[in-house]
Amino acid sequence: MKKFTPILIIGIHALTSDRSWIRFEAVGDEHYLEDIHVGDRFRSTDYNVTEREIVEYATRYDPQPFHTDPTAATKSVFGGLVASGWFTAAITMRLLAQSEIRIAGGLIGMGVDELRWPRPVRPGDTLHVDVEVLEVRPSRSHPDRGIVRVRNTTRNQKEEVVQTLVTALFVPRR
Amino acid sequence: MKKFTPILIIGIHALTSDRSWIRFEAVGDEHYLEDIHVGDRFRSTDYNVTEREIVEYATRYDPQPFHTDPTAATKSVFGGLVASGWFTAAITMRLLAQSEIRIAGGLIGMGVDELRWPRPVRPGDTLHVDVEVLEVRPSRSHPDRGIVRVRNTTRNQKEEVVQTLVTALFVPRR
Repeated sequence: MKKFTPILIIGIHALTSDRSWIRFEAVGDEHYLEDIHVGDRFRSTDYNVTEREIVEYATRYDPQPFHTDPTAATKSVFGGLVASGWFTAAITMRLLAQSEIRIAGGLIGMGVDELRWPRPVRPGDTLHVDVEVLEVRPSRSHPDRGIVRVRNTTRNQKEEVVQTLVTALFVPRR
Repeated sequence: MKKFTPILIIGIHALTSDRSWIRFEAVGDEHYLEDIHVGDRFRSTDYNVTEREIVEYATRYDPQPFHTDPTAATKSVFGGLVASGWFTAAITMRLLAQSEIRIAGGLIGMGVDELRWPRPVRPGDTLHVDVEVLEVRPSRSHPDRGIVRVRNTTRNQKEEVVQTLVTALFVPRR
């Protein structure tokens, strides 16, 4: 398994209108476009999801009974408390940001495509993220950078997929 | 402006493999597929974004200096502290979930397409969400429901777009 580098992979951040995002700086053993290859894979560490955190997140950002009230949730379509999909996305970002390896100079993404939650996350689940590089190509208009498309698949302890996320990001060239 | 009903519009929640999501129940003045029309629009209330909350969210879920360290952020491509895109998504969900109107029986979404952050959110910004119905169609395989595609546009106090999100969701028919 290659030591590819999704640290900021879905740290998709917008551009300011008045600043260029191309001020990359190399730091340590960060990765450049030339270091990344189609098919490269990476697995994150694990994250334990608690009922407390599910409720806490949803109370603040996604207040619906099946996310915030374990009793009411038993009567919902989910049959019990489930995490907000946005909380699953937040955990995914956290797992990638915690990674030891990273793309040179931080990362500015182009956006997210195909964010899906095929299965709910429940209290007690342990999640990890599998990253796969789908596409690597130099930018036509900007020779100092390229675009990398990545699929991030978040799985639970049974290896069941709880989230898929395809994203494209800018990566500087050496 | 129609009283359309995005309460759970991006409350995209996965299905359990062992349960159907079709157990909708009508509650109060919730909206059904027949109540929703292409071109319907809705504007959320406002949300004030503080530096404290930007840092708090990112420290937990998107720990990168331009989200967590106001001083270090001045040297980043953003020129100052900016919110994690995932925090902007969380605020958007919150604004929709707070809405008074809602889709019948809660909402199970099919997924998110085209999540974009064309401009960063900064401390002191005030956000709101504009919702627009793009498509309404009955399900071919399930006569009791339909699919609604919606664009959620999150804007700041200058009406600048900070996030766009296109999503498809299941809505029950009467």
